[in-house]
Amino acid sequence: MAQVLDRQSVAANGETNGFTVVGQSTKRVDALEKVTGRALYAADVSPPGMLWGVFLRSPHPHALIKKIDTSKAEQLPGVLAVITQESLATDQALVVEEEMHATRRVQTLFAQDKVHYEGEKVAAIAATTKELAEEAADLIEVEYEPLQGSGHVLDSIQESLPVINEGTELLDAPADNPWGVTKLNNVAGEHHSVEGDVAAGFAESDRVYTHTFYIPRAHQTYIEPQVTVADVDVGGKVTVWTSTQGPFGVRSNLANSLRLPTNKINVHGMTIGGGFGAKFGGIVDTYAVLLAQKARRPVKMVYSRHEEFVDGRPAPGAHITIKTGVKNDGTIVARQAWALWDTGVGQGGGYATMRTKGVYNVEHFKFDAFDVNTCKPAPGAYRAPGAPQATFAGETQLNIIAEDLGIDPVDIRLKNMREGDQIAFKETLQAVADAAGWADRTSGPNEGWGVAVGEWTNGAGPGTAVVSVHDDGSVHVFSGLMDITGTDTAMAQIAAEVLTVPYDDVTTVRGDTDSAPFATGSGGSVVTFSMGNAVKRAAEDAKQRLLELAAEHLEAPLELLELRGGAVVVKEKPDESVSIAQLAQFALRERGGPVMGKGTFASQPSATTTAAQIGKVEVDPETGKVWIRELYNSLDAGKAINPMASEGQMEGGLVQGFAWGLMEAMHYDRDGHNLNPGLLDYRLPTTADFPDIASVIVEEPTKNGPYGVKGIGEPPIAPGPAALASAVADATGKWIMELPLVPERVYRATHDS
Amino acid sequence: MAQVLDRQSVAANGETNGFTVVGQSTKRVDALEKVTGRALYAADVSPPGMLWGVFLRSPHPHALIKKIDTSKAEQLPGVLAVITQESLATDQALVVEEEMHATRRVQTLFAQDKVHYEGEKVAAIAATTKELAEEAADLIEVEYEPLQGSGHVLDSIQESLPVINEGTELLDAPADNPWGVTKLNNVAGEHHSVEGDVAAGFAESDRVYTHTFYIPRAHQTYIEPQVTVADVDVGGKVTVWTSTQGPFGVRSNLANSLRLPTNKINVHGMTIGGGFGAKFGGIVDTYAVLLAQKARRPVKMVYSRHEEFVDGRPAPGAHITIKTGVKNDGTIVARQAWALWDTGVGQGGGYATMRTKGVYNVEHFKFDAFDVNTCKPAPGAYRAPGAPQATFAGETQLNIIAEDLGIDPVDIRLKNMREGDQIAFKETLQAVADAAGWADRTSGPNEGWGVAVGEWTNGAGPGTAVVSVHDDGSVHVFSGLMDITGTDTAMAQIAAEVLTVPYDDVTTVRGDTDSAPFATGSGGSVVTFSMGNAVKRAAEDAKQRLLELAAEHLEAPLELLELRGGAVVVKEKPDESVSIAQLAQFALRERGGPVMGKGTFASQPSATTTAAQIGKVEVDPETGKVWIRELYNSLDAGKAINPMASEGQMEGGLVQGFAWGLMEAMHYDRDGHNLNPGLLDYRLPTTADFPDIASVIVEEPTKNGPYGVKGIGEPPIAPGPAALASAVADATGKWIMELPLVPERVYRATHDS
Repeated sequence: MAQVLDRQSVAANGETNGFTVVGQSTKRVDALEKVTGRALYAADVSPPGMLWGVFLRSPHPHALIKKIDTSKAEQLPGVLAVITQESLATDQALVVEEEMHATRRVQTLFAQDKVHYEGEKVAAIAATTKELAEEAADLIEVEYEPLQGSGHVLDSIQESLPVINEGTELLDAPADNPWGVTKLNNVAGEHHSVEGDVAAGFAESDRVYTHTFYIPRAHQTYIEPQVTVADVDVGGKVTVWTSTQGPFGVRSNLANSLRLPTNKINVHGMTIGGGFGAKFGGIVDTYAVLLAQKARRPVKMVYSRHEEFVDGRPAPGAHITIKTGVKNDGTIVARQAWALWDTGVGQGGGYATMRTKGVYNVEHFKFDAFDVNTCKPAPGAYRAPGAPQATFAGETQLNIIAEDLGIDPVDIRLKNMREGDQIAFKETLQAVADAAGWADRTSGPNEGWGVAVGEWTNGAGPGTAVVSVHDDGSVHVFSGLMDITGTDTAMAQIAAEVLTVPYDDVTTVRGDTDSAPFATGSGGSVVTFSMGNAVKRAAEDAKQRLLELAAEHLEAPLELLELRGGAVVVKEKPDESVSIAQLAQFALRERGGPVMGKGTFASQPSATTTAAQIGKVEVDPETGKVWIRELYNSLDAGKAINPMASEGQMEGGLVQGFAWGLMEAMHYDRDGHNLNPGLLDYRLPTTADFPDIASVIVEEPTKNGPYGVKGIGEPPIAPGPAALASAVADATGKWIMELPLVPERVYRATHDS
Repeated sequence: MAQVLDRQSVAANGETNGFTVVGQSTKRVDALEKVTGRALYAADVSPPGMLWGVFLRSPHPHALIKKIDTSKAEQLPGVLAVITQESLATDQALVVEEEMHATRRVQTLFAQDKVHYEGEKVAAIAATTKELAEEAADLIEVEYEPLQGSGHVLDSIQESLPVINEGTELLDAPADNPWGVTKLNNVAGEHHSVEGDVAAGFAESDRVYTHTFYIPRAHQTYIEPQVTVADVDVGGKVTVWTSTQGPFGVRSNLANSLRLPTNKINVHGMTIGGGFGAKFGGIVDTYAVLLAQKARRPVKMVYSRHEEFVDGRPAPGAHITIKTGVKNDGTIVARQAWALWDTGVGQGGGYATMRTKGVYNVEHFKFDAFDVNTCKPAPGAYRAPGAPQATFAGETQLNIIAEDLGIDPVDIRLKNMREGDQIAFKETLQAVADAAGWADRTSGPNEGWGVAVGEWTNGAGPGTAVVSVHDDGSVHVFSGLMDITGTDTAMAQIAAEVLTVPYDDVTTVRGDTDSAPFATGSGGSVVTFSMGNAVKRAAEDAKQRLLELAAEHLEAPLELLELRGGAVVVKEKPDESVSIAQLAQFALRERGGPVMGKGTFASQPSATTTAAQIGKVEVDPETGKVWIRELYNSLDAGKAINPMASEGQMEGGLVQGFAWGLMEAMHYDRDGHNLNPGLLDYRLPTTADFPDIASVIVEEPTKNGPYGVKGIGEPPIAPGPAALASAVADATGKWIMELPLVPERVYRATHDS
């Protein structure tokens, strides 16, 4: 049964569920170095002799390249490398072959005969200063012949539009598609799924609703832009210092794209200033290495914020039509979705249309989704990829239905939610409803309430960790894990818990890929689940070794020993004990082995968790401005290793979701020009845009997570847009199905009626 | 039975003893980075904001300090830290307490009330430039009151000399001592050993010989001086980049001396430019950390060559009287030794007097040895510590006896050498005699031949290594092992041998102490024996995992599988196989574990090895100048993993030993002033001083070494001084018992007669 905890109750409770360190809101292990500015980020790395690398980019969303002339740039003193797609094939210093690089869609590293989006890379330059490199970029002469572009999926699918990616063929559109076409142009991928029989389902429904939703591209807007410093030694060994969520993934990418043996690449994952899914390599690292190979000097490349917007890998936009059949009592019978995902020059993401099903029992479910090319950069992962888009459609429509049926939106969810082993959807929703006082909620003039839920099942990546006990009793947790969200702190807590030592006696150390065993990348909410298991097993392995050493040292049978308070004690004779420091000394000096435990986690499944959110808004009827007045959220963490950190995840995800609903959007004109490539025009929320957030942690343990942990990074971003739009509808009586809910859009919606 | 190999036979033989990679003279793994100057040494590390640290040192060998005034230095702009012994006790930024630092003898980090040797540290200063720091050092006012010093052990032991180290008490001298004293002053340590009854032994001998030998202090003269860069982060975590043979030892030293938990210290052992025993920490690292703690900035300290000579930790000098009783047929019956070891202000080393016994059956053996303080820095380890000194006495006297008895010096050794399991003293001596054509040797005018043997039993330090197999089949060997002599190459060979992959597919990676498991320090000839075992076991562990994965993958019984040519093959069905790359992919993607083997070596004993050397010299009768004309050496390597590297060890050790006999010596006046503190006056050999060297590797395997390896770093330095002095005696008829054999000494010996 789920247990509901709030922050205060955890903090007040010295021991939680019999645990000493796990479940405590300990100070983050990286707190001091971060607040004092001593943490080292990739841009802080400057090897001797380092050059700066920059890109030359296309100014056109779609154009043919007639000529590229780099000769003037190459002659500029201080310029040590100029690379284009052509030089990759001809330059002996470079080893790349065209088909070998790694992005989601096979495309060349640089544009050669054609550019497909504004900002596409045409050349890379390394010079002794950044200014010189930029000057050299200006000296490269590129002759373009502009083509008609496309900035929207509804344009791209038209037969009249040019093909953006060569080789893409016209597809037959689904017979019942909502887009009024028979053929689909510019489709890069398709995804279809059927459960039951939706036609039969709609036939047996009392009412059937169809709505169309649009959610724009959003950028992950991590604080630290993409950055890599690369060096190549005389033996060809590549070393990179980079901002990444997964150094081992970066190593694999580079090995594939540069055709190097894995052991000739060492990746240092430096302190990371946010990633949210976008930092798994390929955006700058490959290029920095190529420039370093050619220039035979270290090269630093740091994206500008402008480059982030024109050539990042943001979340895809989605145009989703959703049709739902229900009984009059609110029972969902059937649901069908058609979706066009704005995947720029890339592909992938459309399968997330699956999430329109939500956490509900839906007997008949079907979707047809297409990844559609536009003249924009390929998309990437952004926290719970595809979930906010699909959830916006599914959850908003459910609220429309509830309103139409006169059923409370919380009740309609409780009625339809799935139940089962290790899941606590209803308890989680009920927890946030209780926290918000949902049953007794009141609204003043122009105020309204909205509720929505999101879901996620964390992945489970393979990885290994090592826990060492030193001869002074201090403990190391060593792995290749990247800490984005405080996971190092959780790892230290887990090791301290197993080894019964104070939290402060444990340090976590991140190795580069040369030194650390393989660790899963930090994405998909896998870390605390997967690496937490690896660390727990490593600590247990070390504990077992300590017990065996103690049996020898104390001349006592193993089964009578227990580890307690940092010492091994004979159970019935508390006087007979030996500290783990003494055991580590004994091990090292007399038994030859340091006390070092190894733990590996493979790939066992987790269970689905849900995040439920309630917001109260006020809408200014004069301007359409939406103020968020109250925010409540709950999340089933399985087990919160560090409640403060879990709450941080919940609040961060919630803010990103609500902001995507309220203000965040990448705007493009019809050809594909990016209209707001910077933080001046791309609105990000500040603390002034948000009220205090009340968070409730629910704990329904998984079988396979350490202490029952579920991955919690993703789910809190999903419900926000739907909850916000529903609250605005509650306040204004208008359902707005295109995001974001900027004042102009709300004003028009409420004044056009 | 021993097998005699020479370099050619190994190189010509594609497979040696059934091995593919082990036994091959492969290219060193670090060859490219070293010859191109890309290898990073500690002095190459310059963190942002780094300061330079320098020392203020005593100009007097022995003096009272009346006053130290640092105020002017502290006021110099750009000076960020000035530390004296007094400030250690009072400065809140520093945590050292007087008794807690780590040198062999408990002495304070800095001189406070008294200086005990010229060059003793009085203060340390950190400033923004080295020049500023030196200027600040000049501004520190120290008032000295000079005392009588001592530069020789025969002076120090006299009751009339002042006590150098406070608290040292007068000792009763052994009754039969050769120094003519009844009390011993300034003794810092004593060592005694008795086997049998020497008095009885001398009584039953046909002849008894007594001689006294003197061998001066020699400096290890590694190419790279002592150097450390230290940084301390806001949480107090210490990071050092240093030139050391043992990063884990440095970590322990710092933890003890600075009272920090082990996991708050990270030591990067950088590429090392030689150590020879002198680089285990304490000389600069502690001070660099203290300055960094006080200045709150990174600090670099690099010893000058002058500092190396006045405040390094060189080999102790030794004054050894040795008495041997033999039968007329050359059988050694009894041997007794009395030794005074020049241990400066430190102690330790005197126990090496044990080595005067050599590799011989000596029924009655006794020694009394004393560590004697002089006004010089404490001694340290230098390759086979104490062995060249003791071997000079024991082996030279054996040659004198052979000459007196009219027995061939090779024959008298073969007659007395011990035999037994895993040892091959006679075979090794015979091998070098055969190589030199000893039986048929001829001498021209002023020419002579000398032979001597040395011995060593390698230590066995604990340590762990990790071997990973990547998903492209490439292999990593990871440990905290410092490579001084090519051991990384041997580790790669061992891993390649076990995993049946090409040598080039293996890379060795050194971790810092935060990332690597505990490794034994690289000293005492332990590395290839101890860490070689750890690597072999780690590779075998990985191999076992590969076989288990293959059993699953091929659906074949484990016992029918074998690893061959980088793939697991079903024994009877060579068509059924799976490469280790495929297995690593399978493991990672479907079984969740990277293929990572762990191997730990504890502390099993090795067996004694011997180095035998023969030299032919020519002596200029006009000047006393000695030319070395021919050199032959043999060594029982147990198993030479890399014959070229083994030969390098043999040649390097031989040259150091002969050079100590011929020219190397630290000269002091009677007060203790160092008379040759620099490489202009401290003569080191060049290639012009040595002929080609012929090396013969003997292989009598040990049970516990990997593939039978014995540690071979130490023994080749031991025989040189005795072999050289004996050859000079053969050429001149004069036995010179005081080293080095510089022209003046040889001239006087040959002209005073």
